[in-house]
Amino acid sequence: MAKNNRLIKALKREEVDRPPVWLMRQAGRYMKEYMAIRKQTPFLELCKTPKLAAEVTLQPYKRFHMDAVIIFSDILIPIEAMGMNLELSERGPVLDPPLRTREQIEKLSIPDPYEKTGFVMQVIKEVKDLINDEVPVLGFAGAPWTLASYMIEGGTSKNFIELKRFLFANPDALHLLLEKIAETVTVYLAAQIEAGADAVQIFDTWAGELSSADYKIFALPYLKKIISHLHQISNCPVILYTNGCAAIVEQMLETGADCLSIDWRIDMAEAKRRIGDRAAIQGNLDPCLLLAPAEIIEARVKENISKFGSGPGLVVNLGHGILPPTPPESVEIFVNAVKNYVKQ
Amino acid sequence: MAKNNRLIKALKREEVDRPPVWLMRQAGRYMKEYMAIRKQTPFLELCKTPKLAAEVTLQPYKRFHMDAVIIFSDILIPIEAMGMNLELSERGPVLDPPLRTREQIEKLSIPDPYEKTGFVMQVIKEVKDLINDEVPVLGFAGAPWTLASYMIEGGTSKNFIELKRFLFANPDALHLLLEKIAETVTVYLAAQIEAGADAVQIFDTWAGELSSADYKIFALPYLKKIISHLHQISNCPVILYTNGCAAIVEQMLETGADCLSIDWRIDMAEAKRRIGDRAAIQGNLDPCLLLAPAEIIEARVKENISKFGSGPGLVVNLGHGILPPTPPESVEIFVNAVKNYVKQ
Repeated sequence: MAKNNRLIKALKREEVDRPPVWLMRQAGRYMKEYMAIRKQTPFLELCKTPKLAAEVTLQPYKRFHMDAVIIFSDILIPIEAMGMNLELSERGPVLDPPLRTREQIEKLSIPDPYEKTGFVMQVIKEVKDLINDEVPVLGFAGAPWTLASYMIEGGTSKNFIELKRFLFANPDALHLLLEKIAETVTVYLAAQIEAGADAVQIFDTWAGELSSADYKIFALPYLKKIISHLHQISNCPVILYTNGCAAIVEQMLETGADCLSIDWRIDMAEAKRRIGDRAAIQGNLDPCLLLAPAEIIEARVKENISKFGSGPGLVVNLGHGILPPTPPESVEIFVNAVKNYVKQ
Repeated sequence: MAKNNRLIKALKREEVDRPPVWLMRQAGRYMKEYMAIRKQTPFLELCKTPKLAAEVTLQPYKRFHMDAVIIFSDILIPIEAMGMNLELSERGPVLDPPLRTREQIEKLSIPDPYEKTGFVMQVIKEVKDLINDEVPVLGFAGAPWTLASYMIEGGTSKNFIELKRFLFANPDALHLLLEKIAETVTVYLAAQIEAGADAVQIFDTWAGELSSADYKIFALPYLKKIISHLHQISNCPVILYTNGCAAIVEQMLETGADCLSIDWRIDMAEAKRRIGDRAAIQGNLDPCLLLAPAEIIEARVKENISKFGSGPGLVVNLGHGILPPTPPESVEIFVNAVKNYVKQ
């Protein structure tokens, strides 16, 4: 157990002296320390070089002392291991050729996580060694729906036209794909937990693009399966993130996730009312807040914590990843605003 | 009053024999008739040529016989009239230079709608002449928040970084801008109603990017002001559209809009539960549905209508504009699925 175990306690809805704080994509382009390494190492190579990935993982912690570190990696790593061609850069991923037929889906394998993505477990071990049990180490994976979106679109997308065209025309083939991804993600996260991850986050970033009815069919069952398996093999808390979640909060609860990581559009007080004591809540400041003057950042953090109200189970975070133009000083102000909250 | 007055009745929550149907962006790139005209006329010139704009307005009606036509125009037309440089193409708008200072905002004028944008009123008159009172004619405008987003970002945006940076750093200047836009939009829509629009829709497309708390400050007051003025001068129904509205439905009701036009993420039954009899509801099929096989389109339309349940006040539409790759045949299937609903 980490010396600062606030995050794990909050995820389990146990009492803590103050809410823990970390930020999605806290290691990344907004830090000059990160850019110095990236200058010499392409993105995907960085993900696959445990020593460097561990170093990058620790960069934000060394500077801002969040209550957790999250391993530096990418949600598409297991997709490459399933048999797709992956190119990654900060401009966005390219998966070429994209999946458009059942035959392509049938050819995908369910990779052994140690054999094909052992470098990720190695990153976790390196980070665990370096962090010296100071704070918990988070592992993560993409959710089936979100990963399928990249695989079918061939990259990022605005309207997810190809994905939804496939959903309507080939629902059975899509279910086969989601099933294969779910199996892949399950063993991948289980391996991360075995390697030492203290909690894991499932990024279902694009599930907010589904209608509520389609979420029930194409997202919920696979999330349930993954989370229930992880709960069987360990007591490691599972966080579920979705961008644009206001229409599906109750369904996210049905996945069995220990904590719902929510975006900024939904009011924290309203989210608390809907979630109650059925899960912890992580979030949910607008990532653009970190472009604001210091006093605004501080005021909004306080407001966010007070909107959550009494009781355990709050993890302060953004509602989406840190934006590249974020000034590092703002991250410090954000983290300190949480740390100073209890002192008032 | 139009011979087919279903839309206006539904907007006023009066009984109709079946729900009316029309589609946002029903005149546009997916139609070869439209592309034939656009081949010879640049987008902005088309908007400013009443005879051509009226012809384009009627194209989808002539082919698919929706229950309404919406004038062919663009939400940024009044922004150019306020004093910004506007370039429009299907690739997206460019407003150069974008607004970044209070001084720039102070220089913007509140244009006389007849003097500066008289061609829009002329389009309405032309359409009214041509449509021969068969169906209602819709006018429209962008909402202050959504228009401000284009003015500050200088075009479309992914994360609205510059807009929100401005919001946090210069809230007073942003309020001045929103106030000026609100005044512009008010007289612009009043002129459209005077020219013969039977109903008007306010597009607050990007208000779903605001936190619920910021919506209350930067969107709601200006919408209230516009809608309350329009209600004072006429009994013309006002529709309010927002993409990604699940977190702000109750606030949208506070604007006083007669009808909330909602996106597909929120379940229609849930929207009806939250909205009740306080407004009509327009929507809310996923625009990607029109890329689906015919039987899926038909099934989803039926499901949508049945989820709305009993009572008046449903207008069937998409949850966002028609996507360019939409097959025209699918629009026909969509419209006919609504028309055939009562025949069962």
